[in-house]
Amino acid sequence: MSEAHPDVFIGIPKEEIDTPALLIDLDVFEANIRTMADFFKTVNAELRPHAKTHKTPIIAHKQLEAGAIGITCAKLGEAEALVHAGIRDVLIANQVVGTQKIARLINLAKNSEIMVAVDDADNVDQLSAAAEAKGATLRVLVEVSTGMGRCGTMPGEPTLTLARKILKSKGLKFEGLMGYEGHTVARPDLIERKIETGKAVQLLIDTKDFLEENGVAVGIMSGGGTGTHAITGSYPEMTEIQAGSYVFMDSTYHNVEGVGDRFPCSLTLLTTVVSRPESTRVIVDAGMKVLSKEFGIPQPLTDGLEMRGLSEEHGTMDAEPSVDLKPGDKLEILPSHCCTTVNLHDCYYGVRDGIVESIWEIAARGKSQ
Amino acid sequence: MSEAHPDVFIGIPKEEIDTPALLIDLDVFEANIRTMADFFKTVNAELRPHAKTHKTPIIAHKQLEAGAIGITCAKLGEAEALVHAGIRDVLIANQVVGTQKIARLINLAKNSEIMVAVDDADNVDQLSAAAEAKGATLRVLVEVSTGMGRCGTMPGEPTLTLARKILKSKGLKFEGLMGYEGHTVARPDLIERKIETGKAVQLLIDTKDFLEENGVAVGIMSGGGTGTHAITGSYPEMTEIQAGSYVFMDSTYHNVEGVGDRFPCSLTLLTTVVSRPESTRVIVDAGMKVLSKEFGIPQPLTDGLEMRGLSEEHGTMDAEPSVDLKPGDKLEILPSHCCTTVNLHDCYYGVRDGIVESIWEIAARGKSQ
Repeated sequence: MSEAHPDVFIGIPKEEIDTPALLIDLDVFEANIRTMADFFKTVNAELRPHAKTHKTPIIAHKQLEAGAIGITCAKLGEAEALVHAGIRDVLIANQVVGTQKIARLINLAKNSEIMVAVDDADNVDQLSAAAEAKGATLRVLVEVSTGMGRCGTMPGEPTLTLARKILKSKGLKFEGLMGYEGHTVARPDLIERKIETGKAVQLLIDTKDFLEENGVAVGIMSGGGTGTHAITGSYPEMTEIQAGSYVFMDSTYHNVEGVGDRFPCSLTLLTTVVSRPESTRVIVDAGMKVLSKEFGIPQPLTDGLEMRGLSEEHGTMDAEPSVDLKPGDKLEILPSHCCTTVNLHDCYYGVRDGIVESIWEIAARGKSQ
Repeated sequence: MSEAHPDVFIGIPKEEIDTPALLIDLDVFEANIRTMADFFKTVNAELRPHAKTHKTPIIAHKQLEAGAIGITCAKLGEAEALVHAGIRDVLIANQVVGTQKIARLINLAKNSEIMVAVDDADNVDQLSAAAEAKGATLRVLVEVSTGMGRCGTMPGEPTLTLARKILKSKGLKFEGLMGYEGHTVARPDLIERKIETGKAVQLLIDTKDFLEENGVAVGIMSGGGTGTHAITGSYPEMTEIQAGSYVFMDSTYHNVEGVGDRFPCSLTLLTTVVSRPESTRVIVDAGMKVLSKEFGIPQPLTDGLEMRGLSEEHGTMDAEPSVDLKPGDKLEILPSHCCTTVNLHDCYYGVRDGIVESIWEIAARGKSQ
């Protein structure tokens, strides 16, 4: 009566999957997990992969099996999905604010070794009161503002003040500092990225030094992303790196020097031609409700086609007249931003040698709370 | 253990809903449904509201109760959600292509009076064979290309040829023509919109005349959107109009002359301040995973704030220092594109007089197949 349960497609050629559908090239995906794990054998920092990209516990488990020390996520709802799937060492790399969410967070703390970022004294008081009331201990990192202009305490004195407050707060355990250089991770040029990332990381290191000069031990130093993992991750002061996109990559990260060449793209969108009104135009069933476009219009992997625009449920492509595609034919599109594209889908189709091998539910899809 | 079932919020003040959350101002929403229904009492055309905007059967039922003759949708999966909720007269205003989807469509045809758009002879053959094999009758509109540059047959002879083919095809019933002037619906200037819409509608009317001169009766003439409902809907040749966004509106449609002034915005996103790192900066828990931005960055409804950018899970706002907001405080943001924003959410919170009155599941969220 309605669309097929995805599992019916296991064992069949990928071209027979109904569309639009997210495909993972499992060989490439597994190689990306290995490549990143191998890098972290060469530096002091460890890998704590960011699950905001894939939102899927089984992928987090594969990252842990390859050597990651824990998982990072963006939202409490993602952390719940991970903890419920048996993952205990999870960092929510954001502030958790409000009575309802704090109650959920403390519940998680009783069932895992969850960590959370803070940047506000009142929030620290609320977390402490909630943890103490439940007899829980919540691990806490202070988020330091290192140039992105989003959240975080200012480096130096304000960070020391908040760290000291945490040390005196019942139910909380001060673990260290976090600083995310989100303004540099996707800069294509390697030299420029190194310089700008270095400025951000130095602010974090200087703050660590300042805290320790003042008697506050800083255990964890967390930061970085796929684009800066080898830069930030090479500072001996950094203890963990939050790379996420490397498992899938996308056309944006593909152009980031030193990253795109080491991590091939494993994620594509399978789409069907729904109309060929003219020889120079191909319309597919992939629009903005299955492909994000804030980093640019995603492009097909078929020669002779260029995506001109996405409407809600259509992709409109300019075609060379010689392109042999008619309604019903399928092709693949490379997303321009894997993280927001994944959030539009309910499952992945894992493909090896052209055959669907596995279907994974995107369990934390839409978990924005 | 995880986020609360939304129903626990019924009966409480909207400010106590956990965030991010989509709110519907029920008074405004109901007035918009009435205003649009009232307009269609004054013209020959009837209203067939587009459910791609709300993706929610109970809202479609409310539109039908107010006088709509049926419902439009974009995808087969949306049509299934509507038919399963008891709605029988549904138009899928797109091509349905591929063996699996055609089997689902024919199943729907046996359980409803579903209609589908076609623009391709092979697709007509496939639909006909599938319908005949199941003893079903599928209602069909030919989509005519009227200037948007997406799908559709060319006006005139090619449309006649396809209509005649449908008339000779077992299992299919030719109902008429469809043409969507998607390139004109959101033009702010009313005169320019009237002129450009008129060109598109005239192509559809000329094609109807041409078919009828050639002995092919055209029953249904379908087209239009919220921005053109009063233009396209005023042509006596048009029989039904596919307006969708009018129930919610957004900052884009709000600026469309003759529409924004008649249909106030009923849909907002409730968000929580998660950080106030400086007096001039407010960070909220609303990013691109809960708000689309292809039509522009959504803006808060609070004076003294301006959204500067959205990252995946954060909104970064410039603030006047006098704005009294601290972490935990809530505010509302007006989406810039209601249709793609709704597709990021699992439910609506219906609010009247500041109290949550109803929670509606967005049953067709993500139904892109």
